[in-house]
Amino acid sequence: MFVWRRRVFDRSDDYNWDNAMTPLPIPIDADRFWLRLMAMAEIGKTPGGGVRRLALTDEDRAARDLLSEWFGAVGLRVRVDDLGNMYGRRDGADPDAPPVVIGSHLDTVPTGGRFDGALGVLGALEVVHALNDTGIRTRAPLEVVNWSNEEGARFQPAMLASGVIVGALPLEAAYAARDSTGRTFGDELERIGYRGGAGDRLAQCAAYVELHVEQGPVLERAGAQIGVVEGIEGISWNRVEVTGRAAHAGPTPMADRRDALVAAARLVLLLRDAAQALERVRLTVGRLQVSPNTINVVPGAVEMSLDVRSPRGDGLDAALRAADQACRQVADLDGVTVRRAEFWRSPATPFAERVVEAVASAASRRGYTTKRLWAGAGHDAKYVADRFPAGMIFVPSAGGLSHNEQEWTAPEDCVRGATVLLDTALALAGIVV
Amino acid sequence: MFVWRRRVFDRSDDYNWDNAMTPLPIPIDADRFWLRLMAMAEIGKTPGGGVRRLALTDEDRAARDLLSEWFGAVGLRVRVDDLGNMYGRRDGADPDAPPVVIGSHLDTVPTGGRFDGALGVLGALEVVHALNDTGIRTRAPLEVVNWSNEEGARFQPAMLASGVIVGALPLEAAYAARDSTGRTFGDELERIGYRGGAGDRLAQCAAYVELHVEQGPVLERAGAQIGVVEGIEGISWNRVEVTGRAAHAGPTPMADRRDALVAAARLVLLLRDAAQALERVRLTVGRLQVSPNTINVVPGAVEMSLDVRSPRGDGLDAALRAADQACRQVADLDGVTVRRAEFWRSPATPFAERVVEAVASAASRRGYTTKRLWAGAGHDAKYVADRFPAGMIFVPSAGGLSHNEQEWTAPEDCVRGATVLLDTALALAGIVV
Repeated sequence: MFVWRRRVFDRSDDYNWDNAMTPLPIPIDADRFWLRLMAMAEIGKTPGGGVRRLALTDEDRAARDLLSEWFGAVGLRVRVDDLGNMYGRRDGADPDAPPVVIGSHLDTVPTGGRFDGALGVLGALEVVHALNDTGIRTRAPLEVVNWSNEEGARFQPAMLASGVIVGALPLEAAYAARDSTGRTFGDELERIGYRGGAGDRLAQCAAYVELHVEQGPVLERAGAQIGVVEGIEGISWNRVEVTGRAAHAGPTPMADRRDALVAAARLVLLLRDAAQALERVRLTVGRLQVSPNTINVVPGAVEMSLDVRSPRGDGLDAALRAADQACRQVADLDGVTVRRAEFWRSPATPFAERVVEAVASAASRRGYTTKRLWAGAGHDAKYVADRFPAGMIFVPSAGGLSHNEQEWTAPEDCVRGATVLLDTALALAGIVV
Repeated sequence: MFVWRRRVFDRSDDYNWDNAMTPLPIPIDADRFWLRLMAMAEIGKTPGGGVRRLALTDEDRAARDLLSEWFGAVGLRVRVDDLGNMYGRRDGADPDAPPVVIGSHLDTVPTGGRFDGALGVLGALEVVHALNDTGIRTRAPLEVVNWSNEEGARFQPAMLASGVIVGALPLEAAYAARDSTGRTFGDELERIGYRGGAGDRLAQCAAYVELHVEQGPVLERAGAQIGVVEGIEGISWNRVEVTGRAAHAGPTPMADRRDALVAAARLVLLLRDAAQALERVRLTVGRLQVSPNTINVVPGAVEMSLDVRSPRGDGLDAALRAADQACRQVADLDGVTVRRAEFWRSPATPFAERVVEAVASAASRRGYTTKRLWAGAGHDAKYVADRFPAGMIFVPSAGGLSHNEQEWTAPEDCVRGATVLLDTALALAGIVV
């Protein structure tokens, strides 16, 4: 069937181009796409079957070099900006039209998977390749992008490069970001030879579409093939300090203790209850540090993190009010002091309706089952959305696993995702004869 | 009054020696005792007002050198055994009688106080000095001991040297024990010049009495001046592993989580409830390690310690049965697996009745208020009790603080403790004319 379709486009004079604005059943080459995904996963491959490709390391450089070669092979004009973001441009019929930008990132967490990020970059590359195969020309140019340092695993904060592009972060702060060994983003960018010019940044953008694995179990659970992402949830990061009184575990009677860990344990449970009582709120205590953390000492202090997420504008505040209520309850019950302080907040970001609907209609016209959802994790699309119309396409993650060497998205899901990306990009860029 | 008493003993011919077997109101020299305590606290003094004098460090050597000098000054014959235990001997009238041994340890934890250990060694030294002042001769010899590496802060296990002496631990294991930098007990003992001969070990002992700070709030709370220690509680150390499933905190709905920290929190509370429902059991979760311990990852696993103490022979088993019940409950409720494994147990050790009663009667004849209690922490007296009749005298710790730079026992409490030690030693060793 794919062959037949390809034949149709090869003999373009036989084709009724009046219908060209209707998304065409252009095929993604499943084998070629998968081969590129797996070839990219060889760079930084871990014994556990995952990928370790931290931003601006030699592995990242190798991945960039390979992408650059692939960009060239499909005729994309490559440029690199002063953040190391790589763009591959395919001209459109209208030289003045701002580009439709598609892509994601190639960096990973220390024990990451093969799909997180790479799927969106190589899916975008495959879109271009499929358009080339079929000889389709778009009105607006297409640009494939590989954002630097999305994960934030090596240089904080995450999504550092897209953050600078949209003005959320000063360039100097990005260059000065240090990894755990003291090396800076700026120096490492220079070292791997991917420091381009400020004039090469993304300056205009008709729309940005990012294909990504869901990183959660919602699509798989719902039996949906495509996630139509409506926006990125707001995130509040907090530090909670519980202070009791350290004491020797031997001679201190149970009734005399002000055990900070007992209090923190009560707080963890109360916080979970509070989150479950609220609508569309997720709350996680992911980090917990006991002091002095010794087998025979009653804990004197506990510091823990509190990650709250909600798609609703007022969701974070409601959750934090409930959290403070829990903190007061614990302080009263356990004779400890509890302090909560928010140290970072990212408000909820709804995506551009035009882009969201383009994704939804592309998926439904292909006959894929869909589910609308909000992204619980950050993505470059979030920063891009601050300045340009943006949207995302999710495909299922097996078992919801993510940031994990076992991360898996089936080949057919990858192809469906790239297909929706293709149709969405075409709908947004327009097709010309 | 002290002057008058001293005069009595100086003119011993005036004194009715028929009453000599009755404990005499021999005075401890409060100023001298306190000066020695504070002088010893200068060695390894911390900016926070505490002491850092880890076993077999240069600080420990300096403390030993000073003790050795003081031993000599009061006429004690010094010997050092192959574990570095230091003994200062004062001969008795009966050359064949096994000695009454009094003492404690001079090593501290990294941020220890001025009284833990040092009080018992310098209290014993003061006992000898007071006997010298008054010209009293005992039937059995007296030996003042300074045990090596009681704390176990540098070399594990704790009470390493007394453990070898009573055969609870092989000498080779003690010598091979390594600190965190890889140095061995054996090498460090050699380095500081305190490796003596196996023939110098404590081989005979009529009774062992150790004066120590309580390290808990019980005496202070009860308004008791002297703690008559009936034994050392049994201790069970356990490792508890809670295994759930790590997941991204963003995209994972609350209902889909198997959060190991939520489960561990529930377990901490259930364990505390269980301990409070049991009689004379103390239970502490002092160490808790979350994995991966990252703000935006739902915890996949938690490892925690479980310290259980009880003076009752069956107390530990009853508490561990209750703990296992709590583990099962949590596994059911939170969909996690929970494993508990005991990795060390020290059974409850009752002290010799003869020694306990000698302490009690010494204290009451001096008119001190007393409270009988069990030691919740380990002491060298525990190992010694495995082989010889042993007992302990506790004095109050202000606020129950211990293993803390702020550890404090008032001078008058120190003097009362040494006074009871003196009278107990005399009662056990016997007085001769």
